[in-house]
Amino acid sequence: MKISARNMIRGTVKKVVKGSVNSEVLIELPGGTEITSIITKESAKTLDLKKGKPVYAVVKASNVMIAVD
Amino acid sequence: MKISARNMIRGTVKKVVKGSVNSEVLIELPGGTEITSIITKESAKTLDLKKGKPVYAVVKASNVMIAVD
Amino acid sequence: MKISARNMIRGTVKKVVKGSVNSEVLIELPGGTEITSIITKESAKTLDLKKGKPVYAVVKASNVMIAVD
Amino acid sequence: MKISARNMIRGTVKKVVKGSVNSEVLIELPGGTEITSIITKESAKTLDLKKGKPVYAVVKASNVMIAVD
Amino acid sequence: MKISARNMIRGTVKKVVKGSVNSEVLIELPGGTEITSIITKESAKTLDLKKGKPVYAVVKASNVMIAVD
Amino acid sequence: MKISARNMIRGTVKKVVKGSVNSEVLIELPGGTEITSIITKESAKTLDLKKGKPVYAVVKASNVMIAVD
Repeated sequence: MKISARNMIRGTVKKVVKGSVNSEVLIELPGGTEITSIITKESAKTLDLKKGKPVYAVVKASNVMIAVD
Repeated sequence: MKISARNMIRGTVKKVVKGSVNSEVLIELPGGTEITSIITKESAKTLDLKKGKPVYAVVKASNVMIAVD
Repeated sequence: MKISARNMIRGTVKKVVKGSVNSEVLIELPGGTEITSIITKESAKTLDLKKGKPVYAVVKASNVMIAVD
Repeated sequence: MKISARNMIRGTVKKVVKGSVNSEVLIELPGGTEITSIITKESAKTLDLKKGKPVYAVVKASNVMIAVD
Repeated sequence: MKISARNMIRGTVKKVVKGSVNSEVLIELPGGTEITSIITKESAKTLDLKKGKPVYAVVKASNVMIAVD
Repeated sequence: MKISARNMIRGTVKKVVKGSVNSEVLIELPGGTEITSIITKESAKTLDLKKGKPVYAVVKASNVMIAVD
């Protein structure tokens, strides 16, 4: 399957915090940067997300803002 | 200013493609990964985005999906 | 590849309108309902979207609102 | 009231799962397809969402991605 | 029609800039604050948006970030 | 820091409701209008959000829809 989302960043699951309907997933990138994702608890279960699992953080280009110092 | 968006990734502007109301901005991360952002043409102008400028790609956690192979 | 987005709806591309940085894609569902998507022109090209191609409309659950009459 | 969101899909509430601040709502479309929505618990209450209620799933076009097999 | 989006702010259209597939709409709030919206050109046409028209800016709560100085 | 998000509206925190992974924050604007935001509980903590604190509600233009009566 190929998806239109332009951004797919490889990383590894560092932590999964289960909420009541959503879960927070921390993904660690190779350089050490962390990315936080909020997905439904059901999706986290379906994808069997757990510490150490290789994943992609996927972001649609229209959801990326830009900041400057 | 501090913002609630959990994800701020450092990079450098690689390219700006101006559209009629939106612009597409390519950001290169230190490791070579590219991130694509769509923002208004007006914002790209206000932030004076151009090739080589150091920026942050900013993404709200609820806009990060996760994919597995 | 499996993705966390909970909503994947099968349909067929009915029309692609190219803009300067974004493209508008109309997807027709089996029952005749139409779904409109805005993705980057680059993605529409990479996925080779054209009239008649079978696709999925993919939506993250947090981006679905609910209305009642 | 008319809204700019291009996608309004008719369905029926199949299930409401209440979380602490958000609720997950499953909507069943006429053909049997299910759509999952995450809205605030407060909104689910205000709209009086419950099993069997006819609703619309509403999605802004810029939040629809496209995938191909 | 009632919608789950928690934020509906009254204002008046100040300006519409048509792009190729999207349009940028500036909305002026009573106190003078301006809100910028990007919607499809088609939606701007369907809603007959033009300078002076009273409208609501509608935002899903999960799309509101918070910043502090 | 300057961010590309076009909409930054000043207000004051009126209430914070903590969930398991997300928090709901009510912001009161000068004229009395309320804006609801859903951010991660972690962000609400990092920004030290509490009743009376002056904040900005920040919204990317592509996340603003428009409704008419």
